[in-house]
Amino acid sequence: MTAREKLLNKFNQKKHICVGLDTDLQKIPKYFLDEKEPILAFNKTVIEATAKSAAAYKLNFAFYEKFGPKGFELISETLKFIPDDVLTIADAKRGDIGNTSEMYAKAIFDELNFDSVTLHPYMGYDSLQPFLKYKDKVHFILALTSNKGAMDFENQLLADGKFLYQKVIEKVTEWNTDKNCGIVFGATKIEDLKQNISSFNDLIVLLPGVGAQGGNLDEVTEAFEFAGNINYLINVSRALLYCDDSIAFPKSLSELMDTYTKQSLK
Amino acid sequence: MTAREKLLNKFNQKKHICVGLDTDLQKIPKYFLDEKEPILAFNKTVIEATAKSAAAYKLNFAFYEKFGPKGFELISETLKFIPDDVLTIADAKRGDIGNTSEMYAKAIFDELNFDSVTLHPYMGYDSLQPFLKYKDKVHFILALTSNKGAMDFENQLLADGKFLYQKVIEKVTEWNTDKNCGIVFGATKIEDLKQNISSFNDLIVLLPGVGAQGGNLDEVTEAFEFAGNINYLINVSRALLYCDDSIAFPKSLSELMDTYTKQSLK
Repeated sequence: MTAREKLLNKFNQKKHICVGLDTDLQKIPKYFLDEKEPILAFNKTVIEATAKSAAAYKLNFAFYEKFGPKGFELISETLKFIPDDVLTIADAKRGDIGNTSEMYAKAIFDELNFDSVTLHPYMGYDSLQPFLKYKDKVHFILALTSNKGAMDFENQLLADGKFLYQKVIEKVTEWNTDKNCGIVFGATKIEDLKQNISSFNDLIVLLPGVGAQGGNLDEVTEAFEFAGNINYLINVSRALLYCDDSIAFPKSLSELMDTYTKQSLK
Repeated sequence: MTAREKLLNKFNQKKHICVGLDTDLQKIPKYFLDEKEPILAFNKTVIEATAKSAAAYKLNFAFYEKFGPKGFELISETLKFIPDDVLTIADAKRGDIGNTSEMYAKAIFDELNFDSVTLHPYMGYDSLQPFLKYKDKVHFILALTSNKGAMDFENQLLADGKFLYQKVIEKVTEWNTDKNCGIVFGATKIEDLKQNISSFNDLIVLLPGVGAQGGNLDEVTEAFEFAGNINYLINVSRALLYCDDSIAFPKSLSELMDTYTKQSLK
């Protein structure tokens, strides 16, 4: 089963929530700190409480790399808890010259065996191609991100009348001949989302920014429903992971996940 | 001594070569393969043969991360061989939302203790600020890269008449209030370099692309000399590292480094 097929299965089952495993020792319920490996114990609990309705899990590499060598082991061990039919996303935001991107692709797909990755478009096609040639994976390329700084460059108006992020979407659509591309579009940019949704075509859309960053789950869902597009993945990280710091955390999380899942389809 | 001061000292000593430690087991002289840790033995040899004239060492993270957990140890051990007065660059091309960039910055500066980093501008100021707040470090932000794909987005003409990469240089100049910013400009783009060099002002310029990628050391040096700008760092990776696959490698490397050092100033 390709990564795209895994996702389409979930979308057809009306599952659109991606759980962002941005695990932070400072924020997890205190009772996990008694475990031998608190991060792994927490991630396992999160995955068990959400797997029946999750469409994907996204591991933000920064939260693991900060531990140095051990970080890679934590990523690798966490992946083992994730059911095989649920997509895994390496949120690593890579992008470099060809021979370097090649190495990053090997690390993410061959060593760690992720289903998909997030990528920076800035350096252009030959920086992405070493990833795209993994045809069975899904490659999410940054278009319009959820942060304020998106105004600095992504939202620059080009001489041909398009914004830079629209040019990225146009190019990624061209490069999507193997139907293995996606884009990242901030859930915080709801008006831009509505205006651009008709240009997404076959691209899978990963939307971060719901919850702590201010994006609204209902509004995003309505926009996709209105456009008749089901290929969307709404990432929620902090709002899920840190929903309850008591011993009741697994139950609270599971209930909140159910609520979000219902909200993510109309 | 700040990272910028380290560099300016070297520039004043007429040292401009950055040695790119893109170490690849497939390409290093075979005799290193008998060592317990071939990559470390090779890196140590390279550093010993070049340290007297190197202005900086750049570690391309992809070449280490592909080893998983061990990669971080290789990076950390390699840094120990580099003399304290020579700049170290984490060529990691990071860039993410604020709380994530914060973690990456911690990993690179607090855990690994690098002097500088390479960064993707695409997500804008708040994705860079967690790095820039490390005032004593140098932050190299991608402007015009050495690869063909630079045409796809970096070279897009904006509505205000500038190219995207020129807008990046303009913004980074604004953000350089602590004199801790630099840019990456491809040594392969010699005409663009000449046309833009007057806009670099106080920014330290890291130029990859000499050697295997086709950039010409003499032309780059002449362009900077003509502009009266000494703040440039010319990266050479493959052309140095794989200059000789015999047992004479250290001697060949040392001689080639001397030649490049002389060539990198007129």
